[in-house]
Amino acid sequence: MAFDPRPIGVFDSGVGGLSVVRAIVEAMPFESIVYLGDTARLPYGTKSRETVIRYARRAARVLAERDVKMVVVACNTASAVALGALSDLLAPVPVVGVVEPGARAAVATGARRILVLATEGTVRGGAYERAIARIRPEASVASVACPLFVGLAEEGWTDGQVPRLVAEAYVAPHRTPPPEAVVLGCTHFPLLADAIAEACGSKAVLVDSAATTAAQVKARLRAREAEAPIGPPGRIELFATDGVDRFARVGGRFLGRPIDPTDVQLVNLP
Amino acid sequence: MAFDPRPIGVFDSGVGGLSVVRAIVEAMPFESIVYLGDTARLPYGTKSRETVIRYARRAARVLAERDVKMVVVACNTASAVALGALSDLLAPVPVVGVVEPGARAAVATGARRILVLATEGTVRGGAYERAIARIRPEASVASVACPLFVGLAEEGWTDGQVPRLVAEAYVAPHRTPPPEAVVLGCTHFPLLADAIAEACGSKAVLVDSAATTAAQVKARLRAREAEAPIGPPGRIELFATDGVDRFARVGGRFLGRPIDPTDVQLVNLP
Repeated sequence: MAFDPRPIGVFDSGVGGLSVVRAIVEAMPFESIVYLGDTARLPYGTKSRETVIRYARRAARVLAERDVKMVVVACNTASAVALGALSDLLAPVPVVGVVEPGARAAVATGARRILVLATEGTVRGGAYERAIARIRPEASVASVACPLFVGLAEEGWTDGQVPRLVAEAYVAPHRTPPPEAVVLGCTHFPLLADAIAEACGSKAVLVDSAATTAAQVKARLRAREAEAPIGPPGRIELFATDGVDRFARVGGRFLGRPIDPTDVQLVNLP
Repeated sequence: MAFDPRPIGVFDSGVGGLSVVRAIVEAMPFESIVYLGDTARLPYGTKSRETVIRYARRAARVLAERDVKMVVVACNTASAVALGALSDLLAPVPVVGVVEPGARAAVATGARRILVLATEGTVRGGAYERAIARIRPEASVASVACPLFVGLAEEGWTDGQVPRLVAEAYVAPHRTPPPEAVVLGCTHFPLLADAIAEACGSKAVLVDSAATTAAQVKARLRAREAEAPIGPPGRIELFATDGVDRFARVGGRFLGRPIDPTDVQLVNLP
């Protein structure tokens, strides 16, 4: 059995992907991680396919330069539109996105009526519909763009009437018949899980792709005999393309522990 | 009396600056305008000073290449942090921002207690406080970052309970004593004027910098004998760095008339 001590690269348009880092750390404590948040150009979710691909390629290149053994695209929008382009760019380094694991998690609930809540860019591309159809063609899938969730989650505005009313407005048109599984198709949305659950009704199981993505990362590393050797906990290196203070302040919510701004390195992308 | 038929250049991070274009067209119907929305990198309001300056310089250069006779920085955040850098870059072409006209408009109401609602970047820089203090040092000025207003305005979510509750949450801590003038310190915010007015109380006058910016543009052009000659209505050319369909769809709300996506030209910035 071989090991590979090199880090796993993870990137997102901002801090939301730190929830995937958290899941990877929980599942694989010995792995080191290099995380890049492309905060200078966030959000990706409202931008065109071409622009998201361009930004994602640049971000992935930063990780490749740090000799990562795998790249995890923790941004749903980039996973939805740029996964093929990134796989071509980075080969033979494997690339794992969050859409396919999210689709698998939704299907694994046994649901036949699935509601996907995501960004405008993710919904426009139809990636979740295609991924779910490949696994369970008979499932019925509806997708809703929920752009305001991003701002609410970033501002930490996750309790009270406002997130509940916003969730209600997005979900209400898709509640008859009620969805059985609801995919939180943006790394920001798990912070709003309570409001979303209330809007979706008691029958709906909320599906977050972070844990299933971590499981897929683990399986892929194992298959390649590329897991980290057992030892001290892995190192986490954090990079942002802008605003390290804001990255630290907002990112802590997603990583599940405070981030010291001096631990975030600024990287300038063209 | 001399004239200058060259267009006025206007830029913003996105479509909000089209409200300034609208005010310029109303005040100066013979002027032609070249508008650039830097939609590939919006929003500017959550980004660092350094990054906003970098983006604003690139956007301004696009306008300079089109031989404009003046550049209007219709983005509050860029006006607040990048006006000096842009004036240096573009000299001798004059540069007009929206912060100084907004501050003048607030003071002109006679208010002594002024509340500025703006983006995180604008509030952080304190540009409105400084501009108001220069004109009326005895005025008391408070500033609040209202990031969710941007999303609400972009999504057209301007009526009903959600914008009212969001406005209430932002304004409530600054209502004792009640503000006499409230500066809408982001080009997106005028769309939410009803909700903001309700939250601010009946004594507050809402101040939008679009009309006062147009008045300053007119005065500056007149002083330089650079107004457009009387003739047919000026031409408006629209450029965006990403997503012309979205630009047209959302931008129409700010311009006050529908925009045909085929009339928006995509310009790729590095």
